[in-house]
Amino acid sequence: METNLAVNAIRVLSADEVQKANSGHPGFPLGAAPIAYELFANHIRHNPRNPGWVNRDRFVLSGGHGSAMLYAVLHLFGYDGMTIEELQRFRQLGSKTPGHPEYGIVPGLDATTGPLGAGIGMAVGMAMAEAHLSKLFNKKDLPLVDHYTYAICGDGDLMEGISSEACSLAGTLGLSKLILVYDSNRISIEGSTDLAFREDVKKRFEAFGFQVLEVPDGNDTEAIGEALRQAKADTARPSFIQVHTHIGYGVPAKVDTASAHGEPLGEENVKILRESLGWPLAEAFAVPDEVYAHYGALAAKGAEAEAAWNEAAARYKSADADAYALFEKFQRGELPSEVRAYLEQPEQQEKADATRGVSGAILNAVKDQVPWLFGGSADLAPSNKTALKDAGDFSAEAPEGRNIHFGVRELGMGAIANGIALHGGALPYIGTFFVFADYIKPMMRLASLMKLPVIYVLTHDSIGVGEDGPTHEPVEQLAMLRAQPDLYVFRPADVNETKAAYLTAFTGGLPTVLALSRQNIAPVCTDPKDALKGGYVAAREEGAKPDVLLLASGSEVPLCVEAKALLKAQGVDARVVSVPCMELFAAQDEAYRAEVLPPDVTARVAVEAGSKQPWGAYIGLGGGAVTMETFGESGPAAQLFQHFGFTPENVAAVAARVAGK
Amino acid sequence: METNLAVNAIRVLSADEVQKANSGHPGFPLGAAPIAYELFANHIRHNPRNPGWVNRDRFVLSGGHGSAMLYAVLHLFGYDGMTIEELQRFRQLGSKTPGHPEYGIVPGLDATTGPLGAGIGMAVGMAMAEAHLSKLFNKKDLPLVDHYTYAICGDGDLMEGISSEACSLAGTLGLSKLILVYDSNRISIEGSTDLAFREDVKKRFEAFGFQVLEVPDGNDTEAIGEALRQAKADTARPSFIQVHTHIGYGVPAKVDTASAHGEPLGEENVKILRESLGWPLAEAFAVPDEVYAHYGALAAKGAEAEAAWNEAAARYKSADADAYALFEKFQRGELPSEVRAYLEQPEQQEKADATRGVSGAILNAVKDQVPWLFGGSADLAPSNKTALKDAGDFSAEAPEGRNIHFGVRELGMGAIANGIALHGGALPYIGTFFVFADYIKPMMRLASLMKLPVIYVLTHDSIGVGEDGPTHEPVEQLAMLRAQPDLYVFRPADVNETKAAYLTAFTGGLPTVLALSRQNIAPVCTDPKDALKGGYVAAREEGAKPDVLLLASGSEVPLCVEAKALLKAQGVDARVVSVPCMELFAAQDEAYRAEVLPPDVTARVAVEAGSKQPWGAYIGLGGGAVTMETFGESGPAAQLFQHFGFTPENVAAVAARVAGK
Repeated sequence: METNLAVNAIRVLSADEVQKANSGHPGFPLGAAPIAYELFANHIRHNPRNPGWVNRDRFVLSGGHGSAMLYAVLHLFGYDGMTIEELQRFRQLGSKTPGHPEYGIVPGLDATTGPLGAGIGMAVGMAMAEAHLSKLFNKKDLPLVDHYTYAICGDGDLMEGISSEACSLAGTLGLSKLILVYDSNRISIEGSTDLAFREDVKKRFEAFGFQVLEVPDGNDTEAIGEALRQAKADTARPSFIQVHTHIGYGVPAKVDTASAHGEPLGEENVKILRESLGWPLAEAFAVPDEVYAHYGALAAKGAEAEAAWNEAAARYKSADADAYALFEKFQRGELPSEVRAYLEQPEQQEKADATRGVSGAILNAVKDQVPWLFGGSADLAPSNKTALKDAGDFSAEAPEGRNIHFGVRELGMGAIANGIALHGGALPYIGTFFVFADYIKPMMRLASLMKLPVIYVLTHDSIGVGEDGPTHEPVEQLAMLRAQPDLYVFRPADVNETKAAYLTAFTGGLPTVLALSRQNIAPVCTDPKDALKGGYVAAREEGAKPDVLLLASGSEVPLCVEAKALLKAQGVDARVVSVPCMELFAAQDEAYRAEVLPPDVTARVAVEAGSKQPWGAYIGLGGGAVTMETFGESGPAAQLFQHFGFTPENVAAVAARVAGK
Repeated sequence: METNLAVNAIRVLSADEVQKANSGHPGFPLGAAPIAYELFANHIRHNPRNPGWVNRDRFVLSGGHGSAMLYAVLHLFGYDGMTIEELQRFRQLGSKTPGHPEYGIVPGLDATTGPLGAGIGMAVGMAMAEAHLSKLFNKKDLPLVDHYTYAICGDGDLMEGISSEACSLAGTLGLSKLILVYDSNRISIEGSTDLAFREDVKKRFEAFGFQVLEVPDGNDTEAIGEALRQAKADTARPSFIQVHTHIGYGVPAKVDTASAHGEPLGEENVKILRESLGWPLAEAFAVPDEVYAHYGALAAKGAEAEAAWNEAAARYKSADADAYALFEKFQRGELPSEVRAYLEQPEQQEKADATRGVSGAILNAVKDQVPWLFGGSADLAPSNKTALKDAGDFSAEAPEGRNIHFGVRELGMGAIANGIALHGGALPYIGTFFVFADYIKPMMRLASLMKLPVIYVLTHDSIGVGEDGPTHEPVEQLAMLRAQPDLYVFRPADVNETKAAYLTAFTGGLPTVLALSRQNIAPVCTDPKDALKGGYVAAREEGAKPDVLLLASGSEVPLCVEAKALLKAQGVDARVVSVPCMELFAAQDEAYRAEVLPPDVTARVAVEAGSKQPWGAYIGLGGGAVTMETFGESGPAAQLFQHFGFTPENVAAVAARVAGK
């Protein structure tokens, strides 16, 4: 069978999907179908019968709006559940074919994409995980991990700064098994890329240290194949292949125009497409049997590839059963029971301490038993306390190193962490200042959407930053992150609360933020189990019922304990409630929540060096708040807390007023 | 006097500042002082007596942690208020010398910096404003606007993706009056830049279309000067000058080490610094008179430069008084009274309409009377409806064009908008999908910190996005932005609310977000003046006192009106309150707020296709909420609203329950 027919099957199905949905992006699939075909037919090692094969090549469609193309490919390869009926339900509620590819919903999908550039960053993360694990586990002639990571990206992906962040690092790290294919069609939504993107993209990637290749004719699958072979042949550098394509190829009224991007072609143009491609069948979604047979044979090759790997893995296992068992432990990533016991074990914290330091101690305490922990900081490791001691630096020369130096690239770091988590076999943690959560946010959102266990170690969590001033002092970041679904946001006060945060991070099945202090905080929690409930009574009232509830997190909990003492002298009986994690508290049963926050005690004050917004639902209409409703200032931290009213006296005064005393 | 002494004055004062504060970043000033000297002494046209001179050269210290150096320079040049006492108050609460340079606080400062890379983006925006205004106003031999924009950046700035976003656009636009000086010291906080940054930076900038120059010895002010002259001589391309420097220069124990970056040198090292530089005075903050005299003479040159410009401006004015008057109008940027009248004028909206379309119509209605409006979209203009008709595209060839094509670069776009606003003479508006506010957030924060009147036109504001699915459906973004201080967040429902949003954007003195719908919404507001209060009664109860308050914004307001009708049939008397802007509502007096939200009506339901978080304080402990606590889905928008409970029936059911009926 002609390759052409197999390529055109992708085109026609994509066009049919978009047309049936009357919504979507037909232009990209029509132009890039030969790339997708060549990749999946002749390069990507994948087994449609087992999309979870650990040593499969990874593939990321960075331009997620090309989803119709990917779904067509997955259908043609016979991925389980990817039926023609699902293609017909493209972009419909509950389908396996959503508007943008969604991890966990689309069979065989390695990453959710849509926000441009993110896919490139995630692909870099996958390639980093591969490089790390292959160095850790492969033995001579017995490779367990030796796959490529491929991504297709477009102009938009490359305009996004995240592509520079991630690829500059990929070049630095010599990730030779990373292969980016650039679908270069010179058209963006607003028109020609000349409007905003005249740079020499190839030269940029040369500057990053990539092997740069070019395919002048995007319909030439042989040339694409040859470039991919050259890419694989370079064992020192990642590769970037610019393939010149035509958006909307096959539809004269649309080709090379912006209108091909995001509008259905229209029935008439879909008909013209079939004609211009010489497609044999007129009916929508109809595919000749020979095409299915062709893809079926290709799929069988993929199954053979996995079988060969399984055999090699068996040989590996008999050669070194312990190493193989460890490999399996890395893959499962289950928290060892002794680490769980350590994290559940109450610890006596002798004196005030910075939770960033506590976090660093915990990371180092567990690092040997959780050897799949793999992470670092965006050039702030000494401040974030994220370095794993004696665990080596991850580099081109030493990919076994576990400390990643991301450089000053927060957004790229977020995407890379997602890629590492998606790859599996490694558990990513990443660090920067809490205020720079702003930069990571788009990638945190993807982590939550995909429910990836990424750990965010974000230090310098308030005006406690001090002299660096408002640009470095988070105020609204707790609100920002607590509003995001499927994310645990911890702001621990001490070692036991920080242990609870890590236990949640390791076992909660969701991304977890640790907002940690720069400055010392007096301990408040006697047992991590309390903190695991998200909120608990940190200091109980003297009488039968409190006059007022003081709710706080992190550095403001001991402040409330001090305020409670002042209030007592004034005859006001306060309860202090520590709320290290609102998401966990909300997940407790109503009885527990009512026990901690008695519904009939409506005199409540929230105390947190952050926006009041998340506390509204806790303090109600008449509640008080000692919070930050402005930006911070530059000055010594203790003076700032004073300046902004975070004093026992002020908290007590607000509480007394709210309590009507 | 030797140049050396003048340069070393910057070094010594910087070290003294950091040492006195016992906090700060001494390494960068010690290495980059010759760059700062050469720039301010011989290239930047600035008048310390009048920092607001409109045609001054702009300067951005992108590595804001080098603030001590900038403050030393401003002091030496005699900027008003920048006394030696202020240098001694470096990083203290209320000083003019905060930890990072803060616009509005530091005399003579053109931009707040600190978050790395942002300064480069803002500099690009300034250069774009300059290019635009110079084309609009300059006449042969009578240039009104012809200044350069300089920025000093470091490794960290260049690792940040925003540097690629902004500089790729700068190259595309041929911003030849933009000059970036790269303080290249090969050291980052975690150690050598080789850890994470081995790229060929010069090649990257060549790829972007910059003239790239190099100065091997960062102490060679003549070579730096020569490079700057070459940079200015290129009238087609922006320039990038890599200057090789030594972090911590002058302190043997610190030079070329990461520890020079963010730790005070220590008294002993400051002494050694003085010795190694041959600095004549031992006392901290003492500066020889001849140094002051030298800088005084340079400052006088600056005053002369402004005087010459004033003279040219006077000639311009006599040659064309109308054009000069228009130039002054651009500079003042006051909203013309007829535009105010138009925006205050109630409009009868005949049928349901998408607020993005309404926004586009308003922008185009006012564009001729607000000719300083200058903006565009991150490659989504057709969706965002941000194009100004017949106003031309801003490009290298046509800088008079008012429609900016930012490319798919949301973060860079945010920084550029800040730069345009900082430059003055142009009012920036920028557009993308609302969910991608995530990407712009770090720059929105800077806009709020600087109180810049940037307008964010963010469309596709909810699950109303439909088929594009959860990656494109904002859920938590309203909460995220409402938590940020000094930002107006509008989510209008119709034309009158959108007019109020624009009036606020044009006159409120703060950045303003317009979260706009993709889909049609039935009109709810009869008078923009109501919406200007941030919240108002959109549909009043029938009886004397409502049984329940329904609070909503945007597309959910008409939904509540429908629910109210259903509730009436059930004998529940509801009031519908539209809250298009929480910040404005919070700013109303208590009487008005109590009138809209009677305190004794505690049965309240918030209805918004976004996170419940911002509504907590409005609905209280017993309130109900029809909100989005999960991510969205891919499917037709109407089905999604149904799926997630945004139906009159569900809202009515929740309201009836909350009302106890």
